[in-house]
Formats: sequence, C-alpha cells, structure tokens
Amino acid sequence: MILYNMPSSGNSYKVRLLLGLTGQSADCVDVEYGDVALEKAKAALPFGKAPVLVLDDGTALPESNAILWYLAQETAYWPTTPLEQAQTLSWMFWEQNQHEGVIAVRAALRTYPHRAAQATPERLEELLRQGNALLQVMEKHLANRDWLVGSGPSIADICLYAYTHSAGTRGGYDLAPFPALRAWLDRVAALPGYVGLTA
Amino acid sequence: MILYNMPSSGNSYKVRLLLGLTGQSADCVDVEYGDVALEKAKAALPFGKAPVLVLDDGTALPESNAILWYLAQETAYWPTTPLEQAQTLSWMFWEQNQHEGVIAVRAALRTYPHRAAQATPERLEELLRQGNALLQVMEKHLANRDWLVGSGPSIADICLYAYTHSAGTRGGYDLAPFPALRAWLDRVAALPGYVGLTA
Ligand SMILES: N[C@@H](CCC(=O)N[C@@H](CS)C(=O)NCC(=O)O)C(=O)O
Ligand SMILES: N[C@@H](CCC(=O)N[C@@H](CS)C(=O)NCC(=O)O)C(=O)O
Repeated sequence: MILYNMPSSGNSYKVRLLLGLTGQSADCVDVEYGDVALEKAKAALPFGKAPVLVLDDGTALPESNAILWYLAQETAYWPTTPLEQAQTLSWMFWEQNQHEGVIAVRAALRTYPHRAAQATPERLEELLRQGNALLQVMEKHLANRDWLVGSGPSIADICLYAYTHSAGTRGGYDLAPFPALRAWLDRVAALPGYVGLTA
Repeated sequence: MILYNMPSSGNSYKVRLLLGLTGQSADCVDVEYGDVALEKAKAALPFGKAPVLVLDDGTALPESNAILWYLAQETAYWPTTPLEQAQTLSWMFWEQNQHEGVIAVRAALRTYPHRAAQATPERLEELLRQGNALLQVMEKHLANRDWLVGSGPSIADICLYAYTHSAGTRGGYDLAPFPALRAWLDRVAALPGYVGLTA
C-alpha cells in the first residue's frame, strides 16, 4: 500500500496514527503545500487532496475517514454491532462537516503562510466561538465515558483526536475548560503503538 | 423509528429518499428553521441539528450519512465488497467535507431569509466557482459510469443526489455543462420508490 501523506496535516496524521495502533504499514509519499510534488500528485489523487491510500491493486482511495474505515476492518478499532458502527460513523461525519471546517481551519489560518491573508481578526474570533461550542459537545459526551463510542477506542476517537489534540497549540483554543476532553486526549496518547503528529 | 426531519433540507431529504427506495418507514417529526419545534427539539438532538433517527430502543442517531448507512444495511444500497463499501464512504465523506459546504450553502444563502445577510455578491461568486469545480469532479467520474460506485445505485448516489439535484433551482448553478451528471440525476429519479424533495 502507498499512502499519499501530508506531514503537516491532521487528516493525514489520522491514517498514520491508525497504522501505528494496528501494527500496519504503508509506503509514504510525502506531499506538502508549496511542493512541486503536491502539484504533480494532484492528478493522481481522485479529489486532488491528501491523504489517499493506493491499494495493492492500484485503486486510489481518497478521504481520510474512508481510509480509516478500510484499515480498521477486522481490527478492534471498528466496533462489532451495527448500532455502535453507525454511532462511530456519526462522529466521523460530524468531524468532517462541523469540527474540521472550524478547528482545523483556524489552525491552518494561524500556521500556513499561504492562508495568512484570510486570517482576519473577525474570522479568527468567529472560529474561536464556533470551535468552543464544538469542543463543548465533545466535553459533554465524554463527561461520563472513556471513549466516544462503546467501551473501547474506535476510529471515531482516532478521527477526532487528530485536530483536537492540536487545537491548543495550533488552533489557539484554550482547553482548560474541557477536563473530560483532556483526559480523553491523554487516554488516546497512552494507547500501545501511538505515534505523534511530528513523530 | 422516529425521524426528526427538516422538510426544506437536503440532509433530511436524503433519509426520506432512502426510506422510499428501500420500502421502509419512520414517523416524521418536522422541524424547520424559525419554528419553536426546532428550538425545543435541539436539546433532544445530539448535535443540535436535523436529521436525527430515533431507534426503537430510544437511541438518537444523528448525521444524515450515518443514518443512510444504518438504514442501508442488508439492502442493495450498501455494496457487498469492502473496497466498494470504502469507496461509497469516500464519496459520502467528500460530500460532507466539500460538496455540502459549498453547493448546499449557496442554496441556503439564496433561499433562507435568515441567511440573506451573508449572501454578499463576492461570497455567492466564490461559491459558484468552487461549486462548478466540485460538479466537474462528479461529471468526470460519471462520464463512463452509471453510478458513483460499482454497477448499481448505492447510498453514495442517494447522498450526493440530495443537494446536486437542486443545485440548479436552489443553488443557481448552470448544469448545462455537465451532461453525464444530468443523466445520472435522471437515473436516480427513475428508481422504483423514488420520492421528490417536496413530495
Ligand atoms: N476531506 C478530506 C480533506 C483532505 C484535505 O483537505 N487535504 C488537504 C490537507 S489537510 C490537502 O491535501 N490540500 C491540498 C490542496 O488543496 O491543494 C480528508 O479528510 O481526507
Ligand atoms: N452534517 C449534518 C448536517 C445537518 C444540518 O446542517 N442540519 C441543518 C439543516 S440542513 C439544521 O438542522 N440546522 C438547524 C440549526 O443549525 O439550528 C448532517 O448531514 O445531518
């Protein structure tokens, strides 16, 4: 398997993290904003974005969360009952529709030079307000649970961990008001096989 | 099963369409922007948004695409091989991450009075440009295929159909340059059990 991987991106990190946790491996082709490699790769990437997993039969599978789903089959990171499977997907669709478009975008505006022009104070303020409301949804859910779904870690946790664990450092969110969320971040980081974003 | 359903919304329409196509039914609780019913329902809706499917055991399942997944199990709308299943999810994550945030948002800015203040000419123009690029991704993929994944309709098609079929009327996109896409829209509308957005 070949993974088109953007080292700086949380969407790519999700996949590297699940590979580590499940003891699987892929050959990484690194592409980064501003690289010629990225411009060249785009034609090969179905939706023009990383990550993409190229399977051994040559099929290029895009979308970080679909890749997580594929790699988690037959592992403990994909729950076994249809209800828990559906709940796992609920969190993952929420991540792509709500969380990523706010928390990852605020981090990108603050850290990628090519996004700096869009980083107006009003935009950053609005993303702060929206992001805090999203973190509160997770805080409330995790207040009486160790993991987002069921009794063990699933790809819902891996998916949400990627941009949540860097929401403080990169996104500029204050995580102090979210103790259950912080305890959950620590639980993920303690899983055997864990790899860090910049590891 | 109870479906919290927003009659005007494509995300809710996806679910009603799949129910029709698969011969399933749910009791609908309609909630609409500006309704007291919506404000009251929000506390019951895990992410504060419609649609939500409440299962017979009381579990509230949010996110339109997770609901599609749940309702499609054991039907022909969920493919049978892991690869086609993963490809189905790729399209559905792409829909939530890229397509919905552009094509549905342009339609919302043009049609919901409470969004009108955000509908600046610059924003509408940028959403037009981005949306045409997304429709072109679908056009290219459908140029030599009848359905988004595999040889028959799947929940990937139902998911993408919702906001694409109204991209012209509500979103203000010109679909003339996308003949393969228009033929695909016609194929979906001809499926037995099809129901329209306002049916
Ligand atoms: N929904 C996609 C989003 C992927 C995405 O946005 N990738 C960005 C990096 S985080 C990218 O490749 N950007 C390159 C470009 O747009 O030129 C996923 O989850 O994989
Ligand atoms: N990702 C969600 C999005 C749902 C969504 O945005 N619902 C809107 C209507 S299209 C809603 O309920 N809005 C009510 C509100 O935000 O107050 C899904 O696919 O179900």
